[in-house]
Amino acid sequence: MNKFANQVQIGVVYYPEHWDPSLWEEDVQLMKVTGVRVVRLAEFAWSRMESTPGVYHFEWLDQAIDLFHKYDIRVVLCTPTNTPPRWLTELRPDVLPRNADGTITYPGVRGHRCYNSESLRVYGSRIIEEMTQRYAHHPAVIGWQTDNEYWVIDCHCDACDNKFQEWVKRKYGTLEVVNREWGTVVWSGEYSDWSQVGVPYGGSRHQNPSYLLDFARFQWDSIEEFQRGQLDIIRRNCPSHFVTHNFHTYPQRLNLYQIGADLDFVSFDYYPNTAPDKQSTGPYSGALALDVTRGIKRRNFWIMEQLSGSPGCWFPTWRAPYPGFIRAFSWQAIAKGADTVVHFRWRTAATGAEQFWHGLIDPSNVPGRRFSEFAELCGEVNALSGKLQGTAPKHEAAILLSHEQLEALCIQPQVEGMDYYENVKDYHRALTKLGIGCDVIEWTQPLDGYKIVVAPSFYLLSEEAAASLERFAEAGGTVIVTSRSGVKHMNNQAVMLPLPGLLAECTGVRVEEYDPIGQDKHRVVNSEGRSFTCSQWCDILSLQGAEAIAWYDEDFYSGVPAVTVNSFGGGRVYYLGTHLEEAYLQELFEKEAKAHGMLMFPDLPEGVQIVVRSGKSAAYLFVLNLSRQPRQVILPASYHSVLYGKRRQETLSLEPYGVDVMELPALP
Amino acid sequence: MNKFANQVQIGVVYYPEHWDPSLWEEDVQLMKVTGVRVVRLAEFAWSRMESTPGVYHFEWLDQAIDLFHKYDIRVVLCTPTNTPPRWLTELRPDVLPRNADGTITYPGVRGHRCYNSESLRVYGSRIIEEMTQRYAHHPAVIGWQTDNEYWVIDCHCDACDNKFQEWVKRKYGTLEVVNREWGTVVWSGEYSDWSQVGVPYGGSRHQNPSYLLDFARFQWDSIEEFQRGQLDIIRRNCPSHFVTHNFHTYPQRLNLYQIGADLDFVSFDYYPNTAPDKQSTGPYSGALALDVTRGIKRRNFWIMEQLSGSPGCWFPTWRAPYPGFIRAFSWQAIAKGADTVVHFRWRTAATGAEQFWHGLIDPSNVPGRRFSEFAELCGEVNALSGKLQGTAPKHEAAILLSHEQLEALCIQPQVEGMDYYENVKDYHRALTKLGIGCDVIEWTQPLDGYKIVVAPSFYLLSEEAAASLERFAEAGGTVIVTSRSGVKHMNNQAVMLPLPGLLAECTGVRVEEYDPIGQDKHRVVNSEGRSFTCSQWCDILSLQGAEAIAWYDEDFYSGVPAVTVNSFGGGRVYYLGTHLEEAYLQELFEKEAKAHGMLMFPDLPEGVQIVVRSGKSAAYLFVLNLSRQPRQVILPASYHSVLYGKRRQETLSLEPYGVDVMELPALP
Amino acid sequence: MNKFANQVQIGVVYYPEHWDPSLWEEDVQLMKVTGVRVVRLAEFAWSRMESTPGVYHFEWLDQAIDLFHKYDIRVVLCTPTNTPPRWLTELRPDVLPRNADGTITYPGVRGHRCYNSESLRVYGSRIIEEMTQRYAHHPAVIGWQTDNEYWVIDCHCDACDNKFQEWVKRKYGTLEVVNREWGTVVWSGEYSDWSQVGVPYGGSRHQNPSYLLDFARFQWDSIEEFQRGQLDIIRRNCPSHFVTHNFHTYPQRLNLYQIGADLDFVSFDYYPNTAPDKQSTGPYSGALALDVTRGIKRRNFWIMEQLSGSPGCWFPTWRAPYPGFIRAFSWQAIAKGADTVVHFRWRTAATGAEQFWHGLIDPSNVPGRRFSEFAELCGEVNALSGKLQGTAPKHEAAILLSHEQLEALCIQPQVEGMDYYENVKDYHRALTKLGIGCDVIEWTQPLDGYKIVVAPSFYLLSEEAAASLERFAEAGGTVIVTSRSGVKHMNNQAVMLPLPGLLAECTGVRVEEYDPIGQDKHRVVNSEGRSFTCSQWCDILSLQGAEAIAWYDEDFYSGVPAVTVNSFGGGRVYYLGTHLEEAYLQELFEKEAKAHGMLMFPDLPEGVQIVVRSGKSAAYLFVLNLSRQPRQVILPASYHSVLYGKRRQETLSLEPYGVDVMELPALP
Repeated sequence: MNKFANQVQIGVVYYPEHWDPSLWEEDVQLMKVTGVRVVRLAEFAWSRMESTPGVYHFEWLDQAIDLFHKYDIRVVLCTPTNTPPRWLTELRPDVLPRNADGTITYPGVRGHRCYNSESLRVYGSRIIEEMTQRYAHHPAVIGWQTDNEYWVIDCHCDACDNKFQEWVKRKYGTLEVVNREWGTVVWSGEYSDWSQVGVPYGGSRHQNPSYLLDFARFQWDSIEEFQRGQLDIIRRNCPSHFVTHNFHTYPQRLNLYQIGADLDFVSFDYYPNTAPDKQSTGPYSGALALDVTRGIKRRNFWIMEQLSGSPGCWFPTWRAPYPGFIRAFSWQAIAKGADTVVHFRWRTAATGAEQFWHGLIDPSNVPGRRFSEFAELCGEVNALSGKLQGTAPKHEAAILLSHEQLEALCIQPQVEGMDYYENVKDYHRALTKLGIGCDVIEWTQPLDGYKIVVAPSFYLLSEEAAASLERFAEAGGTVIVTSRSGVKHMNNQAVMLPLPGLLAECTGVRVEEYDPIGQDKHRVVNSEGRSFTCSQWCDILSLQGAEAIAWYDEDFYSGVPAVTVNSFGGGRVYYLGTHLEEAYLQELFEKEAKAHGMLMFPDLPEGVQIVVRSGKSAAYLFVLNLSRQPRQVILPASYHSVLYGKRRQETLSLEPYGVDVMELPALP
Repeated sequence: MNKFANQVQIGVVYYPEHWDPSLWEEDVQLMKVTGVRVVRLAEFAWSRMESTPGVYHFEWLDQAIDLFHKYDIRVVLCTPTNTPPRWLTELRPDVLPRNADGTITYPGVRGHRCYNSESLRVYGSRIIEEMTQRYAHHPAVIGWQTDNEYWVIDCHCDACDNKFQEWVKRKYGTLEVVNREWGTVVWSGEYSDWSQVGVPYGGSRHQNPSYLLDFARFQWDSIEEFQRGQLDIIRRNCPSHFVTHNFHTYPQRLNLYQIGADLDFVSFDYYPNTAPDKQSTGPYSGALALDVTRGIKRRNFWIMEQLSGSPGCWFPTWRAPYPGFIRAFSWQAIAKGADTVVHFRWRTAATGAEQFWHGLIDPSNVPGRRFSEFAELCGEVNALSGKLQGTAPKHEAAILLSHEQLEALCIQPQVEGMDYYENVKDYHRALTKLGIGCDVIEWTQPLDGYKIVVAPSFYLLSEEAAASLERFAEAGGTVIVTSRSGVKHMNNQAVMLPLPGLLAECTGVRVEEYDPIGQDKHRVVNSEGRSFTCSQWCDILSLQGAEAIAWYDEDFYSGVPAVTVNSFGGGRVYYLGTHLEEAYLQELFEKEAKAHGMLMFPDLPEGVQIVVRSGKSAAYLFVLNLSRQPRQVILPASYHSVLYGKRRQETLSLEPYGVDVMELPALP
Repeated sequence: MNKFANQVQIGVVYYPEHWDPSLWEEDVQLMKVTGVRVVRLAEFAWSRMESTPGVYHFEWLDQAIDLFHKYDIRVVLCTPTNTPPRWLTELRPDVLPRNADGTITYPGVRGHRCYNSESLRVYGSRIIEEMTQRYAHHPAVIGWQTDNEYWVIDCHCDACDNKFQEWVKRKYGTLEVVNREWGTVVWSGEYSDWSQVGVPYGGSRHQNPSYLLDFARFQWDSIEEFQRGQLDIIRRNCPSHFVTHNFHTYPQRLNLYQIGADLDFVSFDYYPNTAPDKQSTGPYSGALALDVTRGIKRRNFWIMEQLSGSPGCWFPTWRAPYPGFIRAFSWQAIAKGADTVVHFRWRTAATGAEQFWHGLIDPSNVPGRRFSEFAELCGEVNALSGKLQGTAPKHEAAILLSHEQLEALCIQPQVEGMDYYENVKDYHRALTKLGIGCDVIEWTQPLDGYKIVVAPSFYLLSEEAAASLERFAEAGGTVIVTSRSGVKHMNNQAVMLPLPGLLAECTGVRVEEYDPIGQDKHRVVNSEGRSFTCSQWCDILSLQGAEAIAWYDEDFYSGVPAVTVNSFGGGRVYYLGTHLEEAYLQELFEKEAKAHGMLMFPDLPEGVQIVVRSGKSAAYLFVLNLSRQPRQVILPASYHSVLYGKRRQETLSLEPYGVDVMELPALP
């Protein structure tokens, strides 16, 4: 992989094809002066590169890349398959997705392409072949982005229909097995012939949940296969280039882990919400998104699109980013493990549907306040680049995330107000506010090195996953298990076991019954008699070895255990029978972190986040005030601010959206 | 009809095909021990009984039925037409309904069948023929359920299109009459050729209301015809069996009376809402639903599916039923005239889309609190079964219900906040809270034996219906007429008469004008100067012989009569020009009930309901506390509790969801 | 044009074909007695006039027209193309519109016709040819209404697809120009062949905004062309008749100015909201609608449908019109420049989908309170008719309206809570409450004669429009420019200029940045330190010659100018950087009106409106109390009430919905 991939640096997205060539060199010069090191080019530019079938026009792109080379700015190119040109969709309409209601996703917006379309693969491969051959050895080009922001599109075209049938055949072999594993006998849905197996026309989420989950898995596999076709060409022609993809907007129904596995590193498009009333959630959602991104490959990543102004277009334009906002959230991304942060976009579009998706510079082409802030950021990042290179966040707590739970709980959402990813956010925010921080990794990953592991709703449960938690606890770890765990096997059928199913032994509890309270609020009391709010679901527990540490305080199960802890081997397994308010979660995490002797900043003010990037010779403590208020943080020791070249001790005062970066000794 | 049909007993729904046969005998044994007397089998089992066209597999069902016979449990079988198997919908796609927008209801959920599909009728008849021949003489089998939960599906397929045209021809004879009776001249909609007469593609409710009402009537006739085809086969092959159908979820656009007419008795699927915040409406809605069900054939009925746990699946899971809830609502059903109450379902599904529709036992197969409560219920019902057999609720008040009003007022809803069935609920609740109780019968039924008759919004009005009310009043009855009466003739065209049209004479009022106030609240005052809230509609009345008893208290019609009473023959006809709050309705009903010397319990606490099942030699007073609070009821005399074997007098104390059943002397 | 067109008179809509002919003469006699002078006939009557292709039936219409002639009532006829008969849609299904999702708008409601359908034009021309030849010389017939209530239907049929392609060819000539002017390179949307240019299937508003705006323009042109075909026939056969069209419900996506240009005068269907809680907005919205209508051709107009009772049908019936409501709003229409006011409708429909759209008389055919009020109105109007003939409202203030802004801001709505037409309402209401009044004219109209011109959001801006404002200001006028001006050129692409673009010079400001605050409320303070609420958008301004007169009072741009004024030639140009509350706008307008010495009534109570119709020899001051409360107005002088024949001086007291008309000397 290219050495530039690991550098800590700032980039921008630039679309030369959108602007008069007379503007290009001036733009590149300004980037250079400002400290920009990377640009992303040629996303969505298929029609400009191939105007009609087989007629290529790369001169404009050559010229642009040469210009960047002249000013020593590196270039990331994109495969253009997200937006097939009109000549292709006209020539080969099978490129277009067919929705569940039979309507077609026509060209005109973007993403108008079925991942399984043979025509898309043929014509897509051809243009990628051309691009990669042409730019394999250009000294400015360092890597590639595949397509753009994959998402699960639920296409129901003939190609998908046929490939899904083959997929089911490959997975299950015979119809007998299909009928058994999907439980099709319910509602007379048994298949008597393979021709009956196809995509879920009509799109009803009321269909068989085992079937719907497999349809999602099929789509994950389709996107994986689609991308793999592109990777083969890129790696064959450009062996020294890296390949990445820009994920976006979590939660995604797409299985990020599966798609990320084939990439050199992953990227994320990061648009933190600029609205002041999102202050209390926005920065924490963002922190989770960055942790999720880092967890995809358990390594550092890029931001491929970073907010540079108010997004807008067909939806209402967002609030203007507050002074410091753009810089602070870029630093948050870096703190969380982004090496390169590419800002979207150089200049606000003057044409097309994204005309109000604001870039660093307005269409007037007069750089303003946002640009100045960006320039300041470039200077700072370039100054610290050397120190930060090779460092990465390191944590002793982890949250286990699963796209299979996400999809299954989207198919059958259990109860009003319960949202798998929102619950993950709650656990993550509690850890973040304590300054503990955590990794967010796929639920099947090895857990070595962690001290606390949170396993939110292992609703579908495999024996392997259950065993992994047991091993971790046995070895001394703390595990947090929650309600709606162990409900189903991996093909989305209920198991004939008392809940929490395969986790019954390690949790030491049995769910006798439950009350899906949804949006209703109930209360629990802990052993000190303090009372906390809970919602969503109330498991009515019997102790099978565990000890109760909180009890319900109302309804017919008043006095029944709500939260328990079980000693298991050298560790402890908590069972949270209900969804508890943040105060309770913070107390629980704080107690456990103390017990494990973990680093903590338990009194962080609202909006302030702390992250450590740790390297071989040093570590860097990032303190980020992601709020519109000035904040103060008590430092546990005296540190040197590498950002401001000053000594910091006792109380660190931060301006609204203020940031500091301090050097620590290398962590063990 | 089979003698078992009238027994007071408890049943369960069981799907042997969903479970490993190794579980069956254990399940049946537990049913037997628990006191279950009936099971319903084979609903939705078409694909299991006929795996490919003409290839039948009844061995599994034989085995299951034999097992039930072995343990002396009776079996109700279902015709499986609600869920055509995949081989049929593949072979004959005309089975599938076509929606108003041209999309198809694909297989995958259920109810994917057009009632008018010739293929469905052919293949459906064949499997019913097979089933009925096979089980006609099995000693365990006692009766049949047709299909499952009919509903009006607004299918627009070619078969419906053609049959609707024939239906219109049969009803009206010539296009001249069609054009006149539908008033097609409006908006140039006149038909010049029969080929132009078809189903309402596009589905707009803005279309001609006369046409839309006839399209609903056509659908009622289609379902009637569809069911009659099934009944012919069942009755030919199984003359000693009864046939019923499980209606559900009122209000239904389906005309229950028409479909019920052909059945031996009707059944209802009863799922009272478990949410505590529905306490104030749920038990009263439920009481109405049970009264509606009893009124369909004016005789006792079955519950074919009775709530046994939280419903759930693609929608959020409901709250857990509170202790006593399952038992109390089963007793409510029996009190209201259910003889057999079949609980849905034995064990919660482990596969398919209804995985969280909770049965008596969870997928773990460990019987819990709900099962214990069910077992208690079985014991109680079996103990009282002999006493209750042959008894039925009897009332002196009736509400007149009409599916034609319901449909017409759904086509043209008059005003925001006005809902025909919700208004019926209001009248019904006022009567229920007074302990008067009432029947709810079709609006065209004879009224002999009643003392008070409520006629909510006779919006469409025939001369027969008007004459029937007049006769009833003349003979000394009390009639309550409401606003929006006499507006249209039966083909949904406005009549050229001052309102209330054909009811002008008996009500003695004329509606000079009206103000559709909708959700706005106005006030009326009665002759004692007390003030009440009203809403929806304000008829501005002039007295044409009637006497005013309440007047509007605001707006430009302040001081104008709002409620009137007219002496008509030996009786009284009230006209309610506006929709009044419950307090007003209770006063009105209480006064009239007193005047007629009717039995009342006017001070019942919230949630407590009283019903009398009356037989030749005795009557039984059911007192039901359908709330989460303990309640007390003042008894007018001393009674013997046949449920608890105790004497009850003065104050009866009831636990939350407590129930008592007391013996009375036979009513006259 | 017919001399009857300019008379001040009352009419009614009558549908003889809906009623038994035995009722006709009685109806006409009652109209005559009541003072009705005009009727509109034959709207939607195609199927009755042409029962099958080429088979005409005009006898019934002859008979009806003769009857009106007998009683000296004039007749306006309608082309019946809004509702093609069933034989036509059966014979030529291309008449029916195809929606963006491919579904068809089937017959059954109305408006089921594509303006570009060749079949509609052929068959439509034929029936119009027949009608116009037949009634050209009938002495009762005076004019024609084309079709009914045009609206933009977004049809995607083949005819539209082909004609749109031709339209684009005509506008742009080559694909190179199309690609440039629409900016299609964004998202790879470049056209390589004309065959790719078509209607926006799928209907996504996320498509290219330049393209979508042109698709709207194409539809305006299509309707213009469609109407022109009808006008050619009418004017050829009936040269002495006038032609009009009944516009409805503003804002319309239809370009009223373009369609109005070809008509002799325009008409409006006026249904002021009867709900009391709309009191504070209803009469002002209505005033704007009337001013918009008058502005279409900058001359007087007709009301072709005036509210006569509660509208209702498939939607909830409206509140009953309060006593005086019907009369007062008819007088409002006349005050605002309506000459003839045709009431909708004589008698409430007894059949069809508009059964609860109440006319003057209920289906009972017993005239009631509404009819009495109408009769009173007829008498008053007939009494004043002579005086009012030839008079028209005249104003010195104008609001500049643009359907191109409306459409473009509907395609990209900028920010939550911003609505172009709602903002126009706010400016208009402020002027109305001050008794200043204004014209509302197309934004490209000459501005001579005005003193104040409000230019809300000139978002798309041409050089001509900018120059026109500059000329007006230079000549001494006051211009109000608002945020979101000068953003785009006329093909909906952002201009590469600092905002407000071409208006930078005359406003003397530069928008450095903006904060789209949407529904959030911010505050500004003026130079006197008073504070006002603002919302939607905050332009952060720098002064380039202008003077600041209000400043933001919070957020990071606290203290920055929010409102400025610039001396430009002899005039003043205000820039409103944010959307200000009414109190601020009133102060601004009052100050400017004073400076220009304009007539004002600055202390009008809520709901009271004042208009002057001005003629050669006299002017008439209309004072309208459009509220449910009695109101008092201070008169600046003593006047003669021509309505009541009384002297009015000092304080004029008005009943709820009271009206007075006073004579003034002719205005200069």
